[in-house]
Amino acid sequence: MLFWPVNWAGEQHVQDLEDLIRTIPDYPKPGIMFRDITTLLADAKGLKKAIQHMAKPFENENIDAVAGIEARGFILGGAIADRLQCGFIPIRKKGKLPWKTIGQEYTLEYGVDVIEVHEDAIAPGSRVLIVDDLIATGGTAEAAVKLVQRSGGNIIGATFIVDLPDLGGMQRLAGLGVRSHKLVAFGGH
Amino acid sequence: MLFWPVNWAGEQHVQDLEDLIRTIPDYPKPGIMFRDITTLLADAKGLKKAIQHMAKPFENENIDAVAGIEARGFILGGAIADRLQCGFIPIRKKGKLPWKTIGQEYTLEYGVDVIEVHEDAIAPGSRVLIVDDLIATGGTAEAAVKLVQRSGGNIIGATFIVDLPDLGGMQRLAGLGVRSHKLVAFGGH
Repeated sequence: MLFWPVNWAGEQHVQDLEDLIRTIPDYPKPGIMFRDITTLLADAKGLKKAIQHMAKPFENENIDAVAGIEARGFILGGAIADRLQCGFIPIRKKGKLPWKTIGQEYTLEYGVDVIEVHEDAIAPGSRVLIVDDLIATGGTAEAAVKLVQRSGGNIIGATFIVDLPDLGGMQRLAGLGVRSHKLVAFGGH
Repeated sequence: MLFWPVNWAGEQHVQDLEDLIRTIPDYPKPGIMFRDITTLLADAKGLKKAIQHMAKPFENENIDAVAGIEARGFILGGAIADRLQCGFIPIRKKGKLPWKTIGQEYTLEYGVDVIEVHEDAIAPGSRVLIVDDLIATGGTAEAAVKLVQRSGGNIIGATFIVDLPDLGGMQRLAGLGVRSHKLVAFGGH
């Protein structure tokens, strides 16, 4: 298993993207600084730059499919798949996909949740890039990695706009041998 | 108010896209033929073609923002915004957006539901394209049109992969003066 350095290809701090992200204090509960990317998405130049930079490290990786995590990962993942000229696979909350699925549990602060993928969505041996807007503890991303691997896919990487490095998500993915890429980091969590 | 013909720019029946859509009988309940676009999205050529054809009629319309309807409208809307070099605005189910919102009710078969947009998401006078994967009765699309208009935006059009013409959604939008575009139609509903 390869161990990729945290921040692989993600060293560049993209200040103008950071400035387009709105911080909402005490959401969804007291003490949480919520990083709201909708203000970035609404900005034409910001959206274009975010998608470009998220896709760039994987342009020559012969990605077969982007797996986007519901719901904000869909917005970015569809565009990245279009840029990489590959397919798109939705990873959804439990009960949302219409066909036969496989599911993967992950731990929340209290209790567990489940994400699912269609059981025939990922061709065996296909090269898959995971996309989400933000990585915090990496619990959802790890579950997505396991879902793809259980489906027979190879994880080539994971790409995010925002990393909250104090919560250790990118290190967690590195521990799984997954190289990950982020555009902006917010400390203080 | 202008009334656009139903099927404006949507006359071309895109057979190979239709063939990529999976039909699931009796989902989510007996008698419903569910049109599952995930099989189209997973196909690199199909995804590219769908996004190209959805965006094409609006390329010279100076669109300022794509408003994508949760959740499958996010997958297509992000990519269409990237192609049109405009911003992206999420229209979400109630309670999902982190900032101040305005909401719009719409009628379901039994009861009502609400979609929301951030109250500051749409700049007054901006030219907005609505994106979703499928139009059936047009109830959600009409609510999205009203949300954008109440926010001060101008609806330039709405674009879908699938239309279920027997349910009258595109005619409903035409009645609101909204021109809409689809790639594939399935009758028999």
